[in-house]
Amino acid sequence: MERSPLAPAAFPALPAIAGVTLRVARARYKEWDRCDLTYAELAPGTVVAGVFTKNVCCSTEVEMGREHARLGKARALIVNAGNSNAFTGHRGREAVEFITGKVAAHLGCTPTDVFVSSTGVIGVPLPIDKAEAGLDAALTAEPCGWEMAAETIMTTDTFAKGACAQAVIGDKTVHIAGIIKGSGMIAPDMATMLGYIFTDAAITHELLQQMLSAANRATFSCITVDSDTSTSDTVLAFATGKAGNVPLSSMNDAGADAFAAALRDVCQQLAHLVVRDGEGATKFIEISVEGAVSDESAHRIGLAIANSPLVKTAIAGEDANWGRVVMAVGKAGEPADRDKLAIRFGDHWVARDGLAVAGYDEAPVAAHLKGKEIGIGVDIGLGSGRATVWTCDLTHGYISINADYRS
Amino acid sequence: MERSPLAPAAFPALPAIAGVTLRVARARYKEWDRCDLTYAELAPGTVVAGVFTKNVCCSTEVEMGREHARLGKARALIVNAGNSNAFTGHRGREAVEFITGKVAAHLGCTPTDVFVSSTGVIGVPLPIDKAEAGLDAALTAEPCGWEMAAETIMTTDTFAKGACAQAVIGDKTVHIAGIIKGSGMIAPDMATMLGYIFTDAAITHELLQQMLSAANRATFSCITVDSDTSTSDTVLAFATGKAGNVPLSSMNDAGADAFAAALRDVCQQLAHLVVRDGEGATKFIEISVEGAVSDESAHRIGLAIANSPLVKTAIAGEDANWGRVVMAVGKAGEPADRDKLAIRFGDHWVARDGLAVAGYDEAPVAAHLKGKEIGIGVDIGLGSGRATVWTCDLTHGYISINADYRS
Repeated sequence: MERSPLAPAAFPALPAIAGVTLRVARARYKEWDRCDLTYAELAPGTVVAGVFTKNVCCSTEVEMGREHARLGKARALIVNAGNSNAFTGHRGREAVEFITGKVAAHLGCTPTDVFVSSTGVIGVPLPIDKAEAGLDAALTAEPCGWEMAAETIMTTDTFAKGACAQAVIGDKTVHIAGIIKGSGMIAPDMATMLGYIFTDAAITHELLQQMLSAANRATFSCITVDSDTSTSDTVLAFATGKAGNVPLSSMNDAGADAFAAALRDVCQQLAHLVVRDGEGATKFIEISVEGAVSDESAHRIGLAIANSPLVKTAIAGEDANWGRVVMAVGKAGEPADRDKLAIRFGDHWVARDGLAVAGYDEAPVAAHLKGKEIGIGVDIGLGSGRATVWTCDLTHGYISINADYRS
Repeated sequence: MERSPLAPAAFPALPAIAGVTLRVARARYKEWDRCDLTYAELAPGTVVAGVFTKNVCCSTEVEMGREHARLGKARALIVNAGNSNAFTGHRGREAVEFITGKVAAHLGCTPTDVFVSSTGVIGVPLPIDKAEAGLDAALTAEPCGWEMAAETIMTTDTFAKGACAQAVIGDKTVHIAGIIKGSGMIAPDMATMLGYIFTDAAITHELLQQMLSAANRATFSCITVDSDTSTSDTVLAFATGKAGNVPLSSMNDAGADAFAAALRDVCQQLAHLVVRDGEGATKFIEISVEGAVSDESAHRIGLAIANSPLVKTAIAGEDANWGRVVMAVGKAGEPADRDKLAIRFGDHWVARDGLAVAGYDEAPVAAHLKGKEIGIGVDIGLGSGRATVWTCDLTHGYISINADYRS
């Protein structure tokens, strides 16, 4: 698969996170010549927070991850690429229990300290013999760097994805590094979104969860490639505490705001990278909605635009077809008044008060649409609710990838 | 545009409906060499019922149609093809008022007896001079047949669509004929769905509305091409009363059940024809959901499957990727239990109780998927709610049509 035209030039330089050791190995879940099992060993005392897919047909990995995250402690993360192990019944659960048991025995911890993710085709139980051989190799492998780990968790991604940020807490600088895979937020058997964030900050798992959930609402929950919600989507944040800062336990603590902002920054970078690797994508689209009756309403209107096949194909065709944006606003099921609506592409307002702007000049709009970074702005004109969502265009590439992925 | 591979061999023979006279003319709304204005003259005493788009950014035609239908009387229908007149503010309203006024003066009726629909690009006011010239020609044209009218209301449709049925009320046989356009239920600037049904039955407009609304819920509301809800969708049913039956005014009247069934039959035929002309479609897909907690829940699950780009591309690729159906059930936001779910393609069950069926043989499933008529069945396993929805596959053709339609 060719590298996405929206990919950054190179994988970023991510800082080492004290207390995190990465290793990879070949479990050979598919017939491929690459590592496909990732093992992150986490120092004793590491806390964890997680957000998971809302798909009710979720995988065993998601069910168990949700239970384990509630306990707040983590010693290891295992990621299997090439098989999602979703919809595989008791055999799928046995595979996950085998992995958590084996890693817990190796580290001398409890199985609930071990987190497992799997990504790939749905409906095929994860083969325990392959997992065992992969684990044997991974547990004793030489440590590796972020880029290698980011490559190992990929499936149909066209580039490895990472991001970092730092924050000052008291007299300590803490670091955050994250990796992610997905070329749809939402595409169950080849592009499930899995994200992992690591920090050396000292923080309680309750506060980490609060911050991660808030960041998730403004970042991962604001992207869409194709409106299909995966059975395995997972984002986990691990904090080793090795930075030695005074532990954060409340948003009122000094440095908590800075850390939350840095965490959100990493989440937003990672979320954007997933959109930039959206299946078939040639344009990165930012949709800003303002003037809605509430932020939630603005978010739903933004997603209605972002998920509209007709808006996405118009952008692919570099066609300033703003009538399709009107249509998407109108179908969102949210309060809107046709005659108060205003729409812009980039900085160019094309419609206002229910009709095209006077003397509308399509030339600058057409020029904007020829770029790779597209802005769509909508002012609903009813209130002060606002939201921003991100998506990509819908092209022949998406059809080619998905009409014959599994075969 | 090539004729859809799912089109029927020929336009059906539709009966004349006493009290309905069809005429067409060239308003030249676009640069094309064809009729684009349709005029149906309805005998005095005709009653009307209607269902309209729920898009809150709907066109003036929809707003006025909704108001006029509430009054229950009709003398004329005008359909403009090539311009939807949606999102055109006061200039759009002036055009519709001009048309209703001119036709009312011609027939000696009130403007509220005149129904107008327009379909085509959004955001360009309907040119009154073209409407006037087209009306002048249409009002005095020679009457024409159903196929000509069905061709004249088309935009990007690849074939003309009509259907008929009959019912016995007392000692009278009444006839129903309908025409429709749309190659998405839902695609705002080229494939808006407009449907018109005509009958010679005598029936009150209140009962006709009740029957049409019920038929709509089971037919037009159960199809989707691309999940985008148009700003102009309209279905109108006109009853001239010329059959001379004892007028129907209640579902308890003799013959009411038969007439309602015939009306629903025509609606279902017309709805299926729209799916068969779905943009880029190569497969007609029937999705049957049973075992949901309610019929409404089954309907929403069915639409989640029907609107999933990943399910639709899998069918396009003739790929028995049932994991994508699991995903779509799980994201529907409706009660479902992964471990009670069963899925079939055609008559072949592929998954049951949360995993693939024992000894699953893909060969007969693959053979079914090579056909043009695809069945997907889902048993949720929780209750007795059931629903059927219809859609088409998602192909390169859809992208080609929509990435450069307007330009």
